[in-house]
Amino acid sequence: MNPDWNRAAQQCVERCRVLANYTEEPGWTTRTYLSKPMHEVHRTLAEWLAPCGCEVHIDAAGNFRAVRGVADAPRLVIGSHLDTVIHAGAFDGILGVVMGVAFLESLGTHELPFALELNGFSEEEGVRFGVPFLGSRAVTGDLDDRAIALMSGPIREFGLNAGDLPLARLRPPITGYLEFHIEQGPVLEQLGLPLGIVEAIAGQTRLEVRFEGRAAHAGTTPPRLRKDPLAGAAEWMVEVEREMRETPGLVATVGRIHAEPGAPNVIPSVATLSLDVRHAIDSIRHGAARRLADAAERIAGTRCLRVHMETRSDLAATPMDSGFVSLLEDAVRAAGFPAHRMPSGAGHDAMILAKHFPTAMLFVPSPGGLSHCPEESVREEDVAAGLASGAEFLRLLERRYA
Amino acid sequence: MNPDWNRAAQQCVERCRVLANYTEEPGWTTRTYLSKPMHEVHRTLAEWLAPCGCEVHIDAAGNFRAVRGVADAPRLVIGSHLDTVIHAGAFDGILGVVMGVAFLESLGTHELPFALELNGFSEEEGVRFGVPFLGSRAVTGDLDDRAIALMSGPIREFGLNAGDLPLARLRPPITGYLEFHIEQGPVLEQLGLPLGIVEAIAGQTRLEVRFEGRAAHAGTTPPRLRKDPLAGAAEWMVEVEREMRETPGLVATVGRIHAEPGAPNVIPSVATLSLDVRHAIDSIRHGAARRLADAAERIAGTRCLRVHMETRSDLAATPMDSGFVSLLEDAVRAAGFPAHRMPSGAGHDAMILAKHFPTAMLFVPSPGGLSHCPEESVREEDVAAGLASGAEFLRLLERRYA
Repeated sequence: MNPDWNRAAQQCVERCRVLANYTEEPGWTTRTYLSKPMHEVHRTLAEWLAPCGCEVHIDAAGNFRAVRGVADAPRLVIGSHLDTVIHAGAFDGILGVVMGVAFLESLGTHELPFALELNGFSEEEGVRFGVPFLGSRAVTGDLDDRAIALMSGPIREFGLNAGDLPLARLRPPITGYLEFHIEQGPVLEQLGLPLGIVEAIAGQTRLEVRFEGRAAHAGTTPPRLRKDPLAGAAEWMVEVEREMRETPGLVATVGRIHAEPGAPNVIPSVATLSLDVRHAIDSIRHGAARRLADAAERIAGTRCLRVHMETRSDLAATPMDSGFVSLLEDAVRAAGFPAHRMPSGAGHDAMILAKHFPTAMLFVPSPGGLSHCPEESVREEDVAAGLASGAEFLRLLERRYA
Repeated sequence: MNPDWNRAAQQCVERCRVLANYTEEPGWTTRTYLSKPMHEVHRTLAEWLAPCGCEVHIDAAGNFRAVRGVADAPRLVIGSHLDTVIHAGAFDGILGVVMGVAFLESLGTHELPFALELNGFSEEEGVRFGVPFLGSRAVTGDLDDRAIALMSGPIREFGLNAGDLPLARLRPPITGYLEFHIEQGPVLEQLGLPLGIVEAIAGQTRLEVRFEGRAAHAGTTPPRLRKDPLAGAAEWMVEVEREMRETPGLVATVGRIHAEPGAPNVIPSVATLSLDVRHAIDSIRHGAARRLADAAERIAGTRCLRVHMETRSDLAATPMDSGFVSLLEDAVRAAGFPAHRMPSGAGHDAMILAKHFPTAMLFVPSPGGLSHCPEESVREEDVAAGLASGAEFLRLLERRYA
């Protein structure tokens, strides 16, 4: 590996730490859609790119756009997002953008047979309006009227013009989209691998499950006369875990639970639970969700409870482009690293881009699996591996155009 | 059965409904310790008792006391409580007091070989200060300094003198204490029985159990890398229910549960549960609590969780007096009803009196098992059965003194 990537990786980590200081809340990193510190992020990125000969602008959705090369040439887009969750770490999203800066810097005066665009998306997390992916949906033309209505005030306050949103769309010919991102999970670290090639972004089902029984005195109601919805919920949660363990690649999580009235000496009347089910293959996810719904019905029936289930969301899995994934795999191997394919359990801008353009995504490990918290980190050697692989990707793509 | 008891039972129910109107909150029945409406309850009880030739007074703890017979004669005490929970029904506590009024009315000029005292305890529910049984603890001399400190302000405001609290104590010779009460559970209704003879008031263990794991992303954390405390809590709740079903007479309830941070897409870091375990025999209750604590440790160990358990209370079971229970059993049979013995899963003033005097307690069914709610009710025929049995009890006790 070109030892320069070690230095570039060190600089990427430093730059992420610099950008983490641009925050709405001193002492923390919190930077929501088009909040004031986003101006400083844009300015700083533009300063870093100044020597690279890119054309830089902020589009009407607030996305940072830097284009290297001829405007109507086929274009490879590299990107990730600039916004953060509340009390975030320094690497989620931002790392992919500063790695893009590093690629642009590394090219010097080298002429590519395609244009290269770096996108720093203004909104991915959905913190400001509870609606995610506003930035990437602007470049793919996937914003609906509701989203545009939410965005237009902040766009004006930021000094932009919502009327120009149609101009934010990426225009063909687009060669594809490549995103670098931290894994936000513990898998790569556990496997001792520096990189993960995303094959698909998992589909997701979110249910709210409500078991209804009958409140009664905890001291005076014998077992056979109880209709305890929390006991039913417990039996069901055991089923949820069993379904997860028996279905390879499936994750199923109860993250929220509430029992009413919630007094230690009262058998609950109602137990309400959230269920989050994800898998890279939609039919497997739907099968699991259906079996868990059946289990809830069966458990409720046995216990004389009622059960209500409401689907809160049902998002299809997003496969990455097989050609682009193969190319990324070749690039990772050419850079000297194992090419490990994996699904992404979390959503990313790549989900939005993949509906329109050949898309691939490369993960670097999250030490301790930590993300969305101040302790979020990356190892420089993994970032260097990512940079080296990205450079090989550009080289292989260049060869295709030769 | 003397048909007069039907009319008296009807009157008891009517009187309970009258007293339910004396409330701190119009439209509901809420009457906490020495609240203003308690004056009206005292006045009304005194009016009903006026023809009975009792000596009536309010003691320093605010208990309603009515004594029939010679002051230093052996004395049978009948009683229950006058305070209510918030948004209560019309019968919990009060029914036992108005049944006592009915006994005093029924005696006419009949001379008993013992004195008869009716106690309407001022405080049993513990609503005002979170400390229950203040009224009955005053008559047994079981008030500690903390309780007296809590009570003294309200005592003064009610027009009484806390300095006279020692005078509230029942003085020997006390023949015993008899309490009539609604069951507050569904057992008698399910068995189709009009009466239940309480053998013991169950002991109670209250634990708080806290499973600690590691918060992580629900989408990116595979099963084998999870430390999900809520999944552990679910497995443990299944054990709690199994322990209850396998141990005759045991009740075990998780009434409160909380998962942190409580987001649908985050594996929880902490799950906290309440556990309430009751049994009429302390060794059985302690054994069950120990096995459930062991199960929590075992489950936590298997799942790499930590578990903390804190005993919030450990109240011993209170057996009723075997001689008095036998006498009540004979009385119930003499009145023509099945003598069904049962434990009480809820606490009652009889727990306090039983530590000092021979004590027995008779339940009437709670339709639907409902109590501590406006829908709480009793059936007149069951109250009549209780009155007839109580009259037989007096007759049998009278014969003992003959």
